[in-house]
Amino acid sequence: MAQGSDDIQALIALMARLPGLGPRSARRIVLQLIRRRSQQMVQLAQLLDRVALNSRECATCGNITDRDECAICADPARATGEICVVQDVADLWALERGQAFRGRYHVLGGTLSALDDIGPDELGIPALIGRIHAERISEVILALNATVEGQTTAHYIADALEGTDITITGLAQGVPIGGELDYLDDGTISAALRARRRI
Amino acid sequence: MAQGSDDIQALIALMARLPGLGPRSARRIVLQLIRRRSQQMVQLAQLLDRVALNSRECATCGNITDRDECAICADPARATGEICVVQDVADLWALERGQAFRGRYHVLGGTLSALDDIGPDELGIPALIGRIHAERISEVILALNATVEGQTTAHYIADALEGTDITITGLAQGVPIGGELDYLDDGTISAALRARRRI
Repeated sequence: MAQGSDDIQALIALMARLPGLGPRSARRIVLQLIRRRSQQMVQLAQLLDRVALNSRECATCGNITDRDECAICADPARATGEICVVQDVADLWALERGQAFRGRYHVLGGTLSALDDIGPDELGIPALIGRIHAERISEVILALNATVEGQTTAHYIADALEGTDITITGLAQGVPIGGELDYLDDGTISAALRARRRI
Repeated sequence: MAQGSDDIQALIALMARLPGLGPRSARRIVLQLIRRRSQQMVQLAQLLDRVALNSRECATCGNITDRDECAICADPARATGEICVVQDVADLWALERGQAFRGRYHVLGGTLSALDDIGPDELGIPALIGRIHAERISEVILALNATVEGQTTAHYIADALEGTDITITGLAQGVPIGGELDYLDDGTISAALRARRRI
């Protein structure tokens, strides 16, 4: 109990399990919070409690929201006939920060994985196909990770939509903006070369 | 409001201000917490609230505790006549993990700094001197950082105790356990060489 109290030790242990943190960084954070306990710490506790209570998945797209339907799905201006399929809510947020897409999203919540027993039903792919038809979507953008699992999932969805007149696209692969060729992996270099464009 | 809700954005902003975290790591943590909102997130909120409510500084040594006197000061077995002076509670915790010291502590809460207008009174050094005399301390270990500020503070306390028969010591400087000479800074190497010991 040298580290303050049982509660403080439990708090450090809980913090240390958060992504990117370990015992050392958790201790540092908890000590700073205790130093500012009357303001920052109480505020953090209240926000965590409110967010835990109010957060839910958007019934339509799976985005995190505090209402039944997320702000994107509820926005009539975004009914553009385009739907962007992402793996996680974090990917949706990343695309929104880019401000380049004005349609709606669909969050799968994972990728197909035979090893982990995650099939199309676990990811709600039949529901996605139904939604695409019901909303008369004209373009499906498969913004999935450029990993084997991400691309397998993308191929599965593309196959399921074959025979319809829906345009199916994926994100361009190539050199990141500001990227230095010297630091890029070989796969990206060759993909960027194969997809080269006239300037 | 693409990132969930106003509360979620406020939570990410608050998290991003914690030491070692930034907007990206805060987003990752908040998303994982929301995913486990019914358990981990509620538990974290409750612990933060309880620790914020119950934590206080030990009236004697400045350690963080949930009682008026911390577990170390309250332990009669630790009245060894040795007192270890540290800058922060984090240093006290680090020494306790080492399990080598069985006396009591005194947390200064900072170092002397003319620039920041922190003098002996701000650090409670007169109270420390009073405590050393009142508790009939025989050895004062100045476990302060090996920085200019830490060493200035150590010298100030040593001077204030001059003329008494109290032994004043500092931590040994040298090669850390498991340390490779090649990776050590020059100052540490020369200090370790000057303080070399017969094997």
